Amino acid sequence: MSIISALQWRYATKKMNGEVVVESKINSILEAIRLVPTSSGLQPFEVMVITNPALKESIRKVAFNQSQITDCSHLLVFAAWDHYTTERMTHYFDHYEKERDLPKGFSDDYKNSVMKQLTSLSLERQFEHAAKQIYIALGFALAEAATLQVDSVPMEGFVSADVDDILQLSEKGLRSVLLLPLGYRDTENDWQAELKKVRKTKEDIFTFIR
Amino acid sequence: MSIISALQWRYATKKMNGEVVVESKINSILEAIRLVPTSSGLQPFEVMVITNPALKESIRKVAFNQSQITDCSHLLVFAAWDHYTTERMTHYFDHYEKERDLPKGFSDDYKNSVMKQLTSLSLERQFEHAAKQIYIALGFALAEAATLQVDSVPMEGFVSADVDDILQLSEKGLRSVLLLPLGYRDTENDWQAELKKVRKTKEDIFTFIR
Repeated sequence: MSIISALQWRYATKKMNGEVVVESKINSILEAIRLVPTSSGLQPFEVMVITNPALKESIRKVAFNQSQITDCSHLLVFAAWDHYTTERMTHYFDHYEKERDLPKGFSDDYKNSVMKQLTSLSLERQFEHAAKQIYIALGFALAEAATLQVDSVPMEGFVSADVDDILQLSEKGLRSVLLLPLGYRDTENDWQAELKKVRKTKEDIFTFIR
Repeated sequence: MSIISALQWRYATKKMNGEVVVESKINSILEAIRLVPTSSGLQPFEVMVITNPALKESIRKVAFNQSQITDCSHLLVFAAWDHYTTERMTHYFDHYEKERDLPKGFSDDYKNSVMKQLTSLSLERQFEHAAKQIYIALGFALAEAATLQVDSVPMEGFVSADVDDILQLSEKGLRSVLLLPLGYRDTENDWQAELKKVRKTKEDIFTFIR
């Protein structure tokens, strides 16, 4: 399925039917997320992949009782670094140098320059900067899921601090940003399943300057 | 090409060769952007599609002289709404009701609730909220471009206020967020073209909670 057809097929699934998504498809969606390009390559986020029913139940309670959280197959919780630290940067650049067979310390100047730039932002802005990168990964995840005919519904509507507590994210220096239930639509009970997709017109989005 | 192979193929192209991307491919990339799901469906952004050489030159000057801005085929400038307004919401919901054959005013309660929620944020946070949605569209654009073997390089590094001036975005209530040159890699002169892609390991990104 081409991406465009897949994106036309997908919609924000309001009711899911509890069917399990096979591991190979989940792995492809996670691989799309892993391949995401981000600011300076840092990938400043982590993703919790939740199938535990009790945990889904707890999260549903702090997410306006949205049923997809328990009726999905896998619940992804995207959490961003709460701020940029030397330790995190060093961990990344050590990995980078190893992957590219570069001598240790090769990237120090670049690392210091990125670090200086990012830490000149307030802590809240550092978090916001990291959080934005998650939305690129969300784009990849939605596209790959749709290509595999797996349903999904991105959610910003939940009490982030409560999800952080439930998953003990603060201890890891993370803050939850997005939920993404993955599963299958309950066609009979989702009145939105058959509705026409509404998107802005080309004229409303694009301006061509030749 | 599957999305995963395409995402493995793509990289942040440092040198482009000036070759023109055919209109059908550009149209597919723009269609992927247009299909993006966003918070409450609002799609709070616009995209300038620039092929004008003089304009690319001006933008390059306020974007750390990055050569891809002039050597690309099409330069996309993603700009977010500076804040949420009643006028913008009404425009969207009028369109929504028309597309779904709903009586005018059908969505008023929902519109008012979304508006109330979004305008409770400071102006700067409203802009940040809108800006984040652009990153989902970026994900779609990168995936579709790669699938069509079109090169791309997302850029946060530019003086946003200067790009806003050049494109007169403030007058439209927009602020530039991202640049995305689309074109073809200059393989001979881009030393990064053949380098191994570096991404975090699965273990560094994913935690499975069963």
